[in-house]
Amino acid sequence: MSMTSQIAIDVMGGDHGPEVTVRAAARFLSRHPSAALLLVGDQATIEQHLSAQSGVDRDRIEIVHADQVVAMDESPAIALRTKKSSSMRLAIDLVKDGRAQAAVSAGNTGALMATAKFVLKTLPGIERPAICTALPNESGHTHVLDLGANVDCDAEHLFQFAVMGSVLVEAFDDNPSPRVGLLNVGAEAIKGNDTVKSAAERLEAGPVNYIGFVEGDDIYKGGVDVVVCDGFVGNVALKSSEGVAKMISHFLRQEFKRGVFSRLAALMAMPVLARLKKRVDPGRYNGASLLGLQGIVIKSHGGANVDAFGNALDVALREIEKDVPRRIDQRLETLLQERPKA
Amino acid sequence: MSMTSQIAIDVMGGDHGPEVTVRAAARFLSRHPSAALLLVGDQATIEQHLSAQSGVDRDRIEIVHADQVVAMDESPAIALRTKKSSSMRLAIDLVKDGRAQAAVSAGNTGALMATAKFVLKTLPGIERPAICTALPNESGHTHVLDLGANVDCDAEHLFQFAVMGSVLVEAFDDNPSPRVGLLNVGAEAIKGNDTVKSAAERLEAGPVNYIGFVEGDDIYKGGVDVVVCDGFVGNVALKSSEGVAKMISHFLRQEFKRGVFSRLAALMAMPVLARLKKRVDPGRYNGASLLGLQGIVIKSHGGANVDAFGNALDVALREIEKDVPRRIDQRLETLLQERPKA
Repeated sequence: MSMTSQIAIDVMGGDHGPEVTVRAAARFLSRHPSAALLLVGDQATIEQHLSAQSGVDRDRIEIVHADQVVAMDESPAIALRTKKSSSMRLAIDLVKDGRAQAAVSAGNTGALMATAKFVLKTLPGIERPAICTALPNESGHTHVLDLGANVDCDAEHLFQFAVMGSVLVEAFDDNPSPRVGLLNVGAEAIKGNDTVKSAAERLEAGPVNYIGFVEGDDIYKGGVDVVVCDGFVGNVALKSSEGVAKMISHFLRQEFKRGVFSRLAALMAMPVLARLKKRVDPGRYNGASLLGLQGIVIKSHGGANVDAFGNALDVALREIEKDVPRRIDQRLETLLQERPKA
Repeated sequence: MSMTSQIAIDVMGGDHGPEVTVRAAARFLSRHPSAALLLVGDQATIEQHLSAQSGVDRDRIEIVHADQVVAMDESPAIALRTKKSSSMRLAIDLVKDGRAQAAVSAGNTGALMATAKFVLKTLPGIERPAICTALPNESGHTHVLDLGANVDCDAEHLFQFAVMGSVLVEAFDDNPSPRVGLLNVGAEAIKGNDTVKSAAERLEAGPVNYIGFVEGDDIYKGGVDVVVCDGFVGNVALKSSEGVAKMISHFLRQEFKRGVFSRLAALMAMPVLARLKKRVDPGRYNGASLLGLQGIVIKSHGGANVDAFGNALDVALREIEKDVPRRIDQRLETLLQERPKA
């Protein structure tokens, strides 16, 4: 078991807990014959959910009992101080101890970030970890960071995000030179604030394939591989995008119900709409990376279903296989040698 | 003519210039029998485009010749200094002189804002004007500001935007108590930055129906009437939303072309899709208000078509009828008397 990739799952995290995570775990093992899982949470509950699954390869599952759970709305500071035997904390401890190469949780984002940072520490040279995820674009996907870990960023932070995002995409997508853009505003008046302008200067001198400023719609067009922004802006962009997609889907359902002819058209259009849904399904892109840590931690959406949580597990496995944290660390080391310290 | 509502149109502004603006002007006059227009731009060009329109009520049109045009990519500072006889500048001058009650332009946003601020001045107590527009939501529309005029805002600016947005919606939608929300992030970690937190404190004490923090997706849900944010965040939210909508539309077209059955389904679904398109068409919401000025200035999208530019004209007319700037001014006066100066 020690030669395989091992992922620790915070089984109790998320809106649905073991109902989703254990089923996703079982399917993950079928998809990946050489991977193994550490299921962290209440032992009896996990056993119960496991026994409901047929054909689970129990040899590749180890249960790690945890008697605490971090609540979805718990303060990160309180979770960090009082929940030292939570499923979330123990999953990250397993990465720290080298028993797992990645931890995956659908739990409280703030607590996960705080705990991961406290237990695993950031890579040398990284001041703040960032949350990065892929979003669909017209021809593939775009990675965006930060998505909410850092609501106030200076130019150095944005620069570090750009480097981390670029290395992630190089490794993850086998893309030798990802196009990196800084998210900015399109108003002709005053192109961007001082932070963005200063980050642009650093990137122009720099170590990534920086293509300049991009705007919100560029995330979905396909001309840029890594979009860099502070966590406030990134979170709003992500949530606004989800909101529009939901509204369009809502309107589409309403319009297809308007009258007999529309209902008939809906029947005809069903396979088309199913394919569309699949292409824009946020679950397909579930699994955000907490970048900049000395270890791999993947955040699943709290409301993820079995397929979506499975995607987060796949992201974790791929980051293990591609050795993402070590590659970021190496790039940073080169950079730190080259750059005069700010 | 002096008793009617008069709108000055920057005929030369926008990607399409008089091709769109003059046609939209002619249709606007048919829709609104008591309104009158001042068409500002190259006289010969305007005459030529007008003569191509049939049934135009020339009695309600006055042409104001302008021999300069502000380019779409021109620096606002240079436009302000060197384009004193541009169609944009003269349209705003007409508002200043009381010959028009509103100016509408599809030109360069930055130049329009700089010129409007310079010529008309801000209302007493307002430090910075903001750009505000309506966006569709599941049950109606949501007004969002600022959308790009101010990329760095402090809590006082956000507070002022909230007041201005609330008064706009009170007047515009005959809504006695618009629900006002502050745009914030949903990451559980650290709810918002200091600016947003401090703005929230002021609004909780305050003069609008403040309902608390909202997230990006709330713009499109329908539970809030006015969403307040800085111009950087607002611009990114707007552009990201447009990007997602375009991508979904692109995927939908692709999927409906995949195979004979899908093409057939597309034919059947056409009326449904046309209705959907109409509901989410950004042109329906074209016409952003430059709020906080001593006068009404409406910014049309640069790429607006005739219908969309017509919507911007309708927004201008409604703001005239509802006396929006005076109502904002009155509210501010009350507030300034009540509040200790910061």
